Amino acid sequence: MGKTDWKAEAKALKKKIGKLKTRTKKTLSSAGSAKSAPAVSPLAPAGGFPDLPVIAGVEFASVAAGVRYADRTDVMLARLAPGTAVAGAFTRSATRSAAVLDCQAKLAAKAPKEGGAEGGAAILVNSGNANAFTGRAGQEAVDALCAAAASALAVPAGRVFTASTGVIGEPLPHERIVARLGEMAGTLDPAGIAGAARAIMTTDTFAKGASAEVATPDGPIRIAGIAKGSGMIAPDMATMLVYIFTDAQIAPAPLQKMVARLTDETFNCITVDSDTSTSDSLIVAATGRGPAVGDLRGRPARAFEAALRGVMLDLAHQVVRDGEGATKFVEVRVTGAADDADARRVALAIANSPLVKTAIAGEDANWGRVVMAVGKSGARAERDLLSIRFGDILVAEQGWRAPDYSEAAASDYMKRQDLAISVDLGLGKGASTVWTCDLTHGYIDINADYRS
Amino acid sequence: MGKTDWKAEAKALKKKIGKLKTRTKKTLSSAGSAKSAPAVSPLAPAGGFPDLPVIAGVEFASVAAGVRYADRTDVMLARLAPGTAVAGAFTRSATRSAAVLDCQAKLAAKAPKEGGAEGGAAILVNSGNANAFTGRAGQEAVDALCAAAASALAVPAGRVFTASTGVIGEPLPHERIVARLGEMAGTLDPAGIAGAARAIMTTDTFAKGASAEVATPDGPIRIAGIAKGSGMIAPDMATMLVYIFTDAQIAPAPLQKMVARLTDETFNCITVDSDTSTSDSLIVAATGRGPAVGDLRGRPARAFEAALRGVMLDLAHQVVRDGEGATKFVEVRVTGAADDADARRVALAIANSPLVKTAIAGEDANWGRVVMAVGKSGARAERDLLSIRFGDILVAEQGWRAPDYSEAAASDYMKRQDLAISVDLGLGKGASTVWTCDLTHGYIDINADYRS
Repeated sequence: MGKTDWKAEAKALKKKIGKLKTRTKKTLSSAGSAKSAPAVSPLAPAGGFPDLPVIAGVEFASVAAGVRYADRTDVMLARLAPGTAVAGAFTRSATRSAAVLDCQAKLAAKAPKEGGAEGGAAILVNSGNANAFTGRAGQEAVDALCAAAASALAVPAGRVFTASTGVIGEPLPHERIVARLGEMAGTLDPAGIAGAARAIMTTDTFAKGASAEVATPDGPIRIAGIAKGSGMIAPDMATMLVYIFTDAQIAPAPLQKMVARLTDETFNCITVDSDTSTSDSLIVAATGRGPAVGDLRGRPARAFEAALRGVMLDLAHQVVRDGEGATKFVEVRVTGAADDADARRVALAIANSPLVKTAIAGEDANWGRVVMAVGKSGARAERDLLSIRFGDILVAEQGWRAPDYSEAAASDYMKRQDLAISVDLGLGKGASTVWTCDLTHGYIDINADYRS
Repeated sequence: MGKTDWKAEAKALKKKIGKLKTRTKKTLSSAGSAKSAPAVSPLAPAGGFPDLPVIAGVEFASVAAGVRYADRTDVMLARLAPGTAVAGAFTRSATRSAAVLDCQAKLAAKAPKEGGAEGGAAILVNSGNANAFTGRAGQEAVDALCAAAASALAVPAGRVFTASTGVIGEPLPHERIVARLGEMAGTLDPAGIAGAARAIMTTDTFAKGASAEVATPDGPIRIAGIAKGSGMIAPDMATMLVYIFTDAQIAPAPLQKMVARLTDETFNCITVDSDTSTSDSLIVAATGRGPAVGDLRGRPARAFEAALRGVMLDLAHQVVRDGEGATKFVEVRVTGAADDADARRVALAIANSPLVKTAIAGEDANWGRVVMAVGKSGARAERDLLSIRFGDILVAEQGWRAPDYSEAAASDYMKRQDLAISVDLGLGKGASTVWTCDLTHGYIDINADYRS
């Protein structure tokens, strides 16, 4: 055996380390890990949480009650002034949570057992635990929370609306929330909406807020809303949790009709993963401390409805932009369908197709997968009447790739962060637009290991 | 500067390499890359491609025609003896391929234009290009292929059944296939079925084959089948491409009825990604060179149907076991539904849920997501009547986690490669079983970059 040249050995080893590091980096990048679970979604609106207006008659508090998470707020409380009109829309899941059932019963009640709108109202929401599929104990937890909030805020229990979001099937440690209600009642703040938006987050990477102002002869009507949700998002409802506050004067019945109509055009048109939550809830509270919307066919009412729609659509889009693992925001527009229902069927088939969504993640202008999704949707479609566009680029028409189609131009387009896929079925006047995101390694990372 | 101790330095560097290697392994495994795109699916049947029996009256040839792939066979040809009965089942996609439309027209024709079963028949399949959404050129390519195969094999063109699988929307270079037909006709081999199974693969990681033998008083009936498919798999049809050959004597009409019935219980009960191909085709060819199945209510016919079902189910399961990126094979059994349709709705909602499928990939006994999927299915369900089992482990019943439920036992169970999720809805006698796989980084890897 010759004498070892340790210097040469060390040099060789250093070289080996360099190669190993490069290989690891390359492999990780091809494994998609570079895109995985960013601190904040790359699609988050610039500038962070918006500056939302104070809505007269609404106050917020939030605390870290340790429902599941440590070191973060996880409960939000909103007190609504006497006279507030409350409307809602909820998941249609057959296994919806105790809180959803409770809210639906309260909003459906013509004559609330304990006090009407004149008694004020409250919204109490926790993250970390969905209190869904928790048997009779689930309803008991909701009852306990409503009673405690009613007592702490001096509002009727029949006007306390709760929601819980997080893991399904685990008992909700509601006593941790009850124990903090006194403290929350003592720290209510009309400007506390940003804290409320943060407290209801689960896998969200950013807090979601939106606002609008409607000019009326009697001064401005203000609207401010918050939302949470980034997975288990699909019609109906696509919401997860949405709370919108306005100082408008409007009666509960017309507000409810407006909310139902607008939900169908906004939150029921977004999909992240085709999965529907057991807890999705949307509540709109109108405190009546600002101007009246007046005659529902009049200009102020129509302007109010348009502004409310804008806030709802903005929040819905933010939920998609925070889709688990999302790197692309995609608008799917379907026109020319035999009817609107067919158009929606096609739009959702495209927006929910794992193959379309992975192609988008790979920035691949794979329009053949769009053809596949149209075909499987069940809607009436004829190959030779169909046309497909990526952005303004005509990709296919007359049953064939468009004569001027340039794969290079389409590939270039797919590199954008915001994409539009348009399909015209050439059959009738049915139309529908839905919004979705891509399907990436980030989604798998988040969901293959959410509970642990 | 002191003198460098190169020996110590080398030792330290060696240690560093060891650590780096461990870290790389860990990081890669958490990034899922260890699971990504394996050479062969971990769920592939042990022992490789099975030894399939020769079916009298069927011969195979396969070549590398360079349709899209280099260095592999991509075209298979089967010649079926005169008198062969042919039955089929096909995708219901509204954008189905030219080859599918052509096969359907030929099988529906009561009196084929050119020759009936007595003229023999042929099956010609290429991988690499689906010839779907290729306009009039698509049908012209099919016509050219059928004419060329008819001429090369001296069978009627009206009895040539083609299929194409691969990328959608690209023109099929059918002349490359036509150019090799003479050579293929000259190398037909009754034992060539394994080569045929390999030639029709696309993203498949293993060739799929299954067989059965049915004892009759007149000797054995033999059945041998091949299949391809690993993505874009969902009812109806879930098949991608399936070719089954038997020497049984059976008329086309009863064979067609049997195939339709069995397809519904087998290939229409599997799903990988909820996406349905434009090209899915199943053909069963009975050459009549073996025993007759006889009276359809008699024992031989019933035994034949059971054996054919077994081959179809085996092939269907192999398609799921080769699901793109799959690491788990999952049977979803739904019982106690109001009717069979509701049961199927629930089973497919579970089997297609991205959240259920990622939880399985993460070996997480997240039964809350099963509750969610039941809820969103649209089927009648009552929370308090529902029960859920993972394998034999009772997870939830009476609207609540089962009293004896052990998370540790369930987590242990989830580590298995073959899993069963059972849901009893407690409402009626409706039942349905479907098969699926998990959703992993491997699926994203394969599909975010399939075309390039």
